[in-house]
Amino acid sequence: MSLVIVGTVAFDAIETPFGKTDKIVGGAATFAGFSASYLYDNVKLVSVIGEDFVDNINVITSRGINVEGVEMVKGAKSFFWSGKYHNDMNSRDTLVTELNVLADFDPKIPSSYQDCEYLLLGNLTPQIQLDTLNRLEKQPKLVVLDTMNFWMDVALDDLKKVLKRVDVLTINDSEARQLSGEYSLVKAAKKILAMGPKYLIIKKGEHGALLFGEDQIFSAPALPLAEVFDPTGAGDTFAGGFIGYLAKVKTVNFNNMKNAIIYGSAMASFCVEKFGTERLQNLTNEEISTRLQQFVSLAKFDI
Amino acid sequence: MSLVIVGTVAFDAIETPFGKTDKIVGGAATFAGFSASYLYDNVKLVSVIGEDFVDNINVITSRGINVEGVEMVKGAKSFFWSGKYHNDMNSRDTLVTELNVLADFDPKIPSSYQDCEYLLLGNLTPQIQLDTLNRLEKQPKLVVLDTMNFWMDVALDDLKKVLKRVDVLTINDSEARQLSGEYSLVKAAKKILAMGPKYLIIKKGEHGALLFGEDQIFSAPALPLAEVFDPTGAGDTFAGGFIGYLAKVKTVNFNNMKNAIIYGSAMASFCVEKFGTERLQNLTNEEISTRLQQFVSLAKFDI
Repeated sequence: MSLVIVGTVAFDAIETPFGKTDKIVGGAATFAGFSASYLYDNVKLVSVIGEDFVDNINVITSRGINVEGVEMVKGAKSFFWSGKYHNDMNSRDTLVTELNVLADFDPKIPSSYQDCEYLLLGNLTPQIQLDTLNRLEKQPKLVVLDTMNFWMDVALDDLKKVLKRVDVLTINDSEARQLSGEYSLVKAAKKILAMGPKYLIIKKGEHGALLFGEDQIFSAPALPLAEVFDPTGAGDTFAGGFIGYLAKVKTVNFNNMKNAIIYGSAMASFCVEKFGTERLQNLTNEEISTRLQQFVSLAKFDI
Repeated sequence: MSLVIVGTVAFDAIETPFGKTDKIVGGAATFAGFSASYLYDNVKLVSVIGEDFVDNINVITSRGINVEGVEMVKGAKSFFWSGKYHNDMNSRDTLVTELNVLADFDPKIPSSYQDCEYLLLGNLTPQIQLDTLNRLEKQPKLVVLDTMNFWMDVALDDLKKVLKRVDVLTINDSEARQLSGEYSLVKAAKKILAMGPKYLIIKKGEHGALLFGEDQIFSAPALPLAEVFDPTGAGDTFAGGFIGYLAKVKTVNFNNMKNAIIYGSAMASFCVEKFGTERLQNLTNEEISTRLQQFVSLAKFDI
């Protein structure tokens, strides 16, 4: 049994008010994989890289992550994104997007991945997400889908097809409003759950997240931070921690999903402390449990 | 021992996407007083009204609220505000502001109010807030101050004077950023607590509230609502519920303040269900405890 994550493995160059980087290891599947690897020990990635990434792949495998499903295209370059964050760290400008190998990404599912029980479909074209589902011989126990406003703009029909086949959708509040046409997040959730997913997570950045499903609502806090050093990958890190926790506890229900959101939020709170995946590469179990306790103190009251 | 609330008692005329009202009973002290009256039985108002309010004062006294400190100015008109909410209910246009009796408001503290142990200084000029404090013979056990960006713009020096004399400040997130000059709410809180208050509550509307103090942080959820019928008075209702709960439990500490925020939020969630103070006039204890339990389910997780 395994947890499979489909998404980008890429290079990022990031500029924030605190500094700037050259090309560093990034990509949604990388962030999510790192995050999940602290909670579950059988994490497998599906992605595509260029020859320029070969020297960096050991950063990922050193966390025990299986990269058999990460196709390497000879003589080609990896997906590259460069962005600059504004002073409030809540908005950013994209400086460069080079699709490179991502332009022709056709996800390969190695036979050793057919034991997939937990599947995270990272933010990619809905068609790639559908292809992945079709190439798995057995429907996983839990499918979590991440997407974004761009696919709502250019590939809504495909997105609606994939929504019918997933268990959990994670989007942010403005995306939930766009997808549903409703301003109230309660009404938005009702409409989106009618599109297929059994659970909806609405991410609200510094305001935490809401989980809807089983006719219940859970409101998760975000850890108030004095400084967000680099928010790149925080959403992917959240998703990886979320599904990693569920893979670890093996039972999918609303109560476990509440904890999964707290674990995902805790992992994301580490992610933003340094550039890129740096902080996620060497966490200790003690650091993680201390952080989880901070969430407990933050949210607990006795009524 | 009593809970004294200083603020406006006024008329409002409100337009929302759901409908519009003629002049109805409003004012910060009215909302806060109603809210507190469900939690504590010795609530006293300090305010000023015109002769036009005389027929409405029984709406307030019928909740057992003492209005001896509400001065009535013969031949004059009460403060009147009229506003129109936009479709998202998060922004509004002020259509009319008639100060009327509020222009010369000079708070009178009846001798029967000198037993004040809990004091809520509603959003008024910092000078009136200072005058009130100076007219109390004994410093209350707990002083809660509400203010707004307007006073930061036009009366910052006075505001800073009153901040040195209060225990709790309640403002919203953009006001916290304005007052501190910091974007990060953690940094903002640190600066604001250095200005005098022992505790700071940052209200974030549909995203809940943060409490800072005693080197701790509490993140309170807001109840996700399908519809906000009329947000007028929600902040005042929150403040009234907050201080009402603390007056009831008699002990001021961080843990009790956490519960007080949940009580305040629960009362505010009723407030927005109907126009003005309508929903706050006839709540049952059962409705309130059911609502509190919704907050418990919303926020609870077991890690």
